[in-house]
Amino acid sequence: MTLRYLTAGESHGPALVGILDGLPAGVPTDLDGIRHELARRRLGYGRSPRMNFELDRIEILGGVRHGLTLGSPVALVIHNTEWEKWTEAMGIEAPEDPDALQATGRGAALTRPRPGHADLVGMQKYDFDDARNVLERASARETATRVGLGWFAKRLLRHVGVEVLSHVTRIAEVAVGEEHPLPGPNDLDRIDEDPMRCLDPDVSQSMQDRVDRAKSERDTLGGVVEVVVHGLPPGLGSHVHWDRKLDTRLAAALMSIQAFKGVGVGDGFGSAAVPGSVAHDEILPGEDGRFVRKTHRAGGLEGGMTTGEVLRVTAAMKPLSSLMRPLSTVDTATRGPAEAITQRSDVCAVPRAGVVAEAVVAMELASALLEKTGGDSLGEVTRNLQGYLAGVDRP
Amino acid sequence: MTLRYLTAGESHGPALVGILDGLPAGVPTDLDGIRHELARRRLGYGRSPRMNFELDRIEILGGVRHGLTLGSPVALVIHNTEWEKWTEAMGIEAPEDPDALQATGRGAALTRPRPGHADLVGMQKYDFDDARNVLERASARETATRVGLGWFAKRLLRHVGVEVLSHVTRIAEVAVGEEHPLPGPNDLDRIDEDPMRCLDPDVSQSMQDRVDRAKSERDTLGGVVEVVVHGLPPGLGSHVHWDRKLDTRLAAALMSIQAFKGVGVGDGFGSAAVPGSVAHDEILPGEDGRFVRKTHRAGGLEGGMTTGEVLRVTAAMKPLSSLMRPLSTVDTATRGPAEAITQRSDVCAVPRAGVVAEAVVAMELASALLEKTGGDSLGEVTRNLQGYLAGVDRP
Amino acid sequence: MTLRYLTAGESHGPALVGILDGLPAGVPTDLDGIRHELARRRLGYGRSPRMNFELDRIEILGGVRHGLTLGSPVALVIHNTEWEKWTEAMGIEAPEDPDALQATGRGAALTRPRPGHADLVGMQKYDFDDARNVLERASARETATRVGLGWFAKRLLRHVGVEVLSHVTRIAEVAVGEEHPLPGPNDLDRIDEDPMRCLDPDVSQSMQDRVDRAKSERDTLGGVVEVVVHGLPPGLGSHVHWDRKLDTRLAAALMSIQAFKGVGVGDGFGSAAVPGSVAHDEILPGEDGRFVRKTHRAGGLEGGMTTGEVLRVTAAMKPLSSLMRPLSTVDTATRGPAEAITQRSDVCAVPRAGVVAEAVVAMELASALLEKTGGDSLGEVTRNLQGYLAGVDRP
Amino acid sequence: MTLRYLTAGESHGPALVGILDGLPAGVPTDLDGIRHELARRRLGYGRSPRMNFELDRIEILGGVRHGLTLGSPVALVIHNTEWEKWTEAMGIEAPEDPDALQATGRGAALTRPRPGHADLVGMQKYDFDDARNVLERASARETATRVGLGWFAKRLLRHVGVEVLSHVTRIAEVAVGEEHPLPGPNDLDRIDEDPMRCLDPDVSQSMQDRVDRAKSERDTLGGVVEVVVHGLPPGLGSHVHWDRKLDTRLAAALMSIQAFKGVGVGDGFGSAAVPGSVAHDEILPGEDGRFVRKTHRAGGLEGGMTTGEVLRVTAAMKPLSSLMRPLSTVDTATRGPAEAITQRSDVCAVPRAGVVAEAVVAMELASALLEKTGGDSLGEVTRNLQGYLAGVDRP
Repeated sequence: MTLRYLTAGESHGPALVGILDGLPAGVPTDLDGIRHELARRRLGYGRSPRMNFELDRIEILGGVRHGLTLGSPVALVIHNTEWEKWTEAMGIEAPEDPDALQATGRGAALTRPRPGHADLVGMQKYDFDDARNVLERASARETATRVGLGWFAKRLLRHVGVEVLSHVTRIAEVAVGEEHPLPGPNDLDRIDEDPMRCLDPDVSQSMQDRVDRAKSERDTLGGVVEVVVHGLPPGLGSHVHWDRKLDTRLAAALMSIQAFKGVGVGDGFGSAAVPGSVAHDEILPGEDGRFVRKTHRAGGLEGGMTTGEVLRVTAAMKPLSSLMRPLSTVDTATRGPAEAITQRSDVCAVPRAGVVAEAVVAMELASALLEKTGGDSLGEVTRNLQGYLAGVDRP
Repeated sequence: MTLRYLTAGESHGPALVGILDGLPAGVPTDLDGIRHELARRRLGYGRSPRMNFELDRIEILGGVRHGLTLGSPVALVIHNTEWEKWTEAMGIEAPEDPDALQATGRGAALTRPRPGHADLVGMQKYDFDDARNVLERASARETATRVGLGWFAKRLLRHVGVEVLSHVTRIAEVAVGEEHPLPGPNDLDRIDEDPMRCLDPDVSQSMQDRVDRAKSERDTLGGVVEVVVHGLPPGLGSHVHWDRKLDTRLAAALMSIQAFKGVGVGDGFGSAAVPGSVAHDEILPGEDGRFVRKTHRAGGLEGGMTTGEVLRVTAAMKPLSSLMRPLSTVDTATRGPAEAITQRSDVCAVPRAGVVAEAVVAMELASALLEKTGGDSLGEVTRNLQGYLAGVDRP
Repeated sequence: MTLRYLTAGESHGPALVGILDGLPAGVPTDLDGIRHELARRRLGYGRSPRMNFELDRIEILGGVRHGLTLGSPVALVIHNTEWEKWTEAMGIEAPEDPDALQATGRGAALTRPRPGHADLVGMQKYDFDDARNVLERASARETATRVGLGWFAKRLLRHVGVEVLSHVTRIAEVAVGEEHPLPGPNDLDRIDEDPMRCLDPDVSQSMQDRVDRAKSERDTLGGVVEVVVHGLPPGLGSHVHWDRKLDTRLAAALMSIQAFKGVGVGDGFGSAAVPGSVAHDEILPGEDGRFVRKTHRAGGLEGGMTTGEVLRVTAAMKPLSSLMRPLSTVDTATRGPAEAITQRSDVCAVPRAGVVAEAVVAMELASALLEKTGGDSLGEVTRNLQGYLAGVDRP
Repeated sequence: MTLRYLTAGESHGPALVGILDGLPAGVPTDLDGIRHELARRRLGYGRSPRMNFELDRIEILGGVRHGLTLGSPVALVIHNTEWEKWTEAMGIEAPEDPDALQATGRGAALTRPRPGHADLVGMQKYDFDDARNVLERASARETATRVGLGWFAKRLLRHVGVEVLSHVTRIAEVAVGEEHPLPGPNDLDRIDEDPMRCLDPDVSQSMQDRVDRAKSERDTLGGVVEVVVHGLPPGLGSHVHWDRKLDTRLAAALMSIQAFKGVGVGDGFGSAAVPGSVAHDEILPGEDGRFVRKTHRAGGLEGGMTTGEVLRVTAAMKPLSSLMRPLSTVDTATRGPAEAITQRSDVCAVPRAGVVAEAVVAMELASALLEKTGGDSLGEVTRNLQGYLAGVDRP
């Protein structure tokens, strides 16, 4: 049984919670490392000022002892530092005076569902009169849990030499070129220091200008991130069944991120536009008996399996749905026309969405690694992987 | 427990087999319907002549009685009509004389893995000396099983008024416009009659010309298909957990198809290139008290759930990896350089890949429908759905 | 997707945590109800004094708002009220001075694995030098989480008229008769008030005497509990696949409880000892057109499905493995012989194990109910169930 | 991803089908081996004469080439040799003349559900008028598929030195003693040669006498089987989560077998009747540095994991529900009283049920083994296991 996890928690509820089962024992764990990863999720140019206050207070409640995982499920809690403002509006227990609650700002039922959000259909599906019952869970704040749990997957991967990173390749119509250089395993700090998390400083400046313009137009922007993984062994995933292909699982993981609308492996949609003679990665004998590739078009995946080359996947994020200028909607209480609530909002969340994308990719890769190696302790995982690689390289 | 299925069988083995569990009782079933669907998977311009001989001999071995599903798992077998040519090369039992087998054309070990296929990494992962042990299963022939099983999902969906269809929107650099009209529920026959399964006859002609050119250049072509679904109720899928979002599951299903490298929901990657003010579907009060949308940019999905609008997903297929002109590779027996085998190949498989895409989309939608409605008979599914829709429309 | 849950937390760690996904919206939730259920898990004669101090401080961190479930995953935290004593021995972060920690009572490595526990094999599997890394998670304290989450399942079942209860039928060689009366839906309070949770006061007294004797002998006792469920509709579970049979799932759930070694459905092992002519429940036309049964030997399950009769399952618990008199073991540090640690221990945990058994049975039944009915709100679940039952009763 | 499988097929349908996914490549496979295993499922004293004609015609349609598994899903078909008699009554396609079909013996709707079978509740759940739609799938004939697929699990286990066998310990009130000797790894042939599959010839004779008497009384008998497994490594399964405990999974697998009503691990219900001082297996230093046990009460499982000792589980089968003398039932067409159909039936199916029990136990053990070792080829599985065992034995 490989990695599986559940997350819980509403955006303004007391906390976000995640449980991750399936890690081997012995993965080095430190809270500062997780905090740092969560802070990376707040990176980016054009963030709303309120984001600065979203400091994360975290606890690990299970699965770790003395800085090492125990093999038992890991429980991570990310407390809501503004919970005291929300104890009534988001209270667990039934309010003593529901009418009084409705009269408060935060407690009033939300009946004007925002286009582009889960609000309307969530109300229909779950038979709610108040969109807050939907949007609190649908919020992208949930991804903090995945970033926190994904840190463990990254830490496991790092132990066997695998590094997962991301960068931004497009903001609206501003994009790096098709043949942009790939970030190397040591480029992450440099990327994180750029306000757009873009590898190319010139393109980054254009992206920032574009964000400034959108801000002045009270608009929002989407974009594209690329996740790049170095150091993978060949043979993670499998061609034998559709749901065991790594492509399948990576596409699921990436598309599950809030506001993501597209996923590509390697050249992705671009590979549909070129002929076969220039679409594949020819194989050559390399030094020391290994096989190497001329190109990296396939993104490090063939037949649903890692090839051992650099893995590369892209994902498209739509512009944020909460605009500073109102979109048309309905009032579900009156069933008449209305304007969707406008609220202070970020202009562009793409830079930090890349950090979420790293997390979910790391989770799928760590899971596929453990399926390949088995093993219940870090030493066993490593020994089994080395035994396999010895056979691949010196058959 | 909702729909789950396993498929088995190698491309030149005795048969392909699929088992589908979770269908309610009472789904009308006829073998001719399945045969017709499988024949649709052979559609398309520029098919290799051998495809004409690939007639499907099918059997249902369980789960159906007297033209209706029984609620028990459905077993479908698609026999290999050329099995008699392969009984030695693909024999189940150990050959009496392995050396003699190696001396035959079909039985000789394949040691020159083809770039773009599972061949090389499959050999490494499973410790094989013969790429045939990999490619027989990795072959896209497996999708026939999914089309056959997907027919049951479509049949169930049709019973509640849902129609799944697909069309081709791009072949290499030839594409329909961004604002192309969507095919309606009755357009499928017209699409199937077009050699490219393209809705626009002029674009289709350009696509055919492009295929002709590729053929003369001994090259192959990829493209993009769009799956369009009419008649869905709102609220299939859920926003509450990442793996219950319908986007997640559709992305997984589509990316799992052989040679697929990209997936988009609604405007997909295009939605990353426009500002938020024109990226969402505003909500309006419609006639008879229902809510309607001004636009269809989101592809009929918000917050991981169907909105009740037309569902629209796109998927990108890379060019076929088996070319008529050789790609560079290695010989795994000698570890030196080699040329990949060239073989008679189709130029372009995109038109029929759309039929596969329909099947896997239908499977996920039927599964999500059954999660919403529960029910063990077709009558119970329908009654539960109608009860839900009555509440949505007249709250 | 039906009910699924993960639990985390070590016995002396900061807290136990559980996440339950799949509940419909609208299940009435109150913390006092959960606290009461957790208190029931501390019932029983012959409890160790330390149990009295094990008061539960609980929090719900997600999935509930204003006293109703939201359809999103429910997160429950049960804090360890003695955590301050264990912050060093069970600290999450690496200790500053590991040697000093070893010198403390709680922090010293445990190297004498206790027979009957996970200690030894857990150390081998996970490559640990300290049995505490195993026993903290293997402890039956984990069942508190399951009782807490199971409360939600019970609450859902109650809404549709289903009541789950348990009683003790055997302690060591003291047992109620084979033909004992079954507790009715209103007998739970009376059972809980009995020190042994036994329905028959005379047998309860004998059980208490037996516990007293065991205590004087520094020994421990096991026993048998029976879970009885009233009000179930027919047709939960399914005969069509082995893992969809309700018997399968109930057996798994019950056997998963710490120290449980046997499970029976209906007459269980007793049904193996009688001929077929007296082993089955004949069917009769009842009043108002329903069908009724002469007997209840099958335990309310036929073909892996509820029959609509009273459901009845039994489970056997072995005596507690932590005795006040030492068992022989080894010291894993020296690999020589040793005595297992003796510790203050309960004599008999069977009465409260029945409460855990109720919880896991309720979880499987609620899951099977939701598979039958579908539905995302309590109203939808109920409407769908009623529609089904109308057809069963008046076909 | 470990072993998973689906089965399909009705008792009198064209065939039974199973697909097993998750086997590593290289498992030696021969059809005669599978045929022999299926023949073992027909063993036993007091079989109905018709059983002699139930010869199995099998095919492997995928997942095996040249006598070795490919790592891809294995598809097994067991043809119904009497299919030609059933082509109308069990035809896949809608009958041309349904009324004429009703007039035939096999084709007439069955409306008198048999107590002890899935008949009645299956009709209610799936909204059927004809019990045949239920009983064809609920029949124990389905277990042939599990025996066939289980053969692969056994074959894998054998490769690493694990042997799974079973014997009968009770038929009605005739039982071997509590302290009966356990069969060794080489006793299987001897057990199979006994008409009751009982290790003790004297007890076997009493069992046969008991069967003779039941036959003369037109009655049926149940009993108990014990599955014994030699050669297991320690550490399969896990204590860290309830559904990863091997006890959980073995209980599920055994209880899923048709007519099974009870499951025990080790001493099972017997362990509930003895005090703790004699209920556990004390640990001793053994020769060559390994640890050994004084007793085998726990059945080779502690904390949900194999201990490396002999694994021992028991399962109780109720008497067959199809008697030669009629049980009372109802006619669902009239809703009035009726007699259940009597039919030629076996008196006792316990001996062969042991073979089914072996299969499902082998499946769970092989799955747990692969979770421990990972690996995609038999060589990799073995290498990883040996690396682990070296650490356990010489830490």
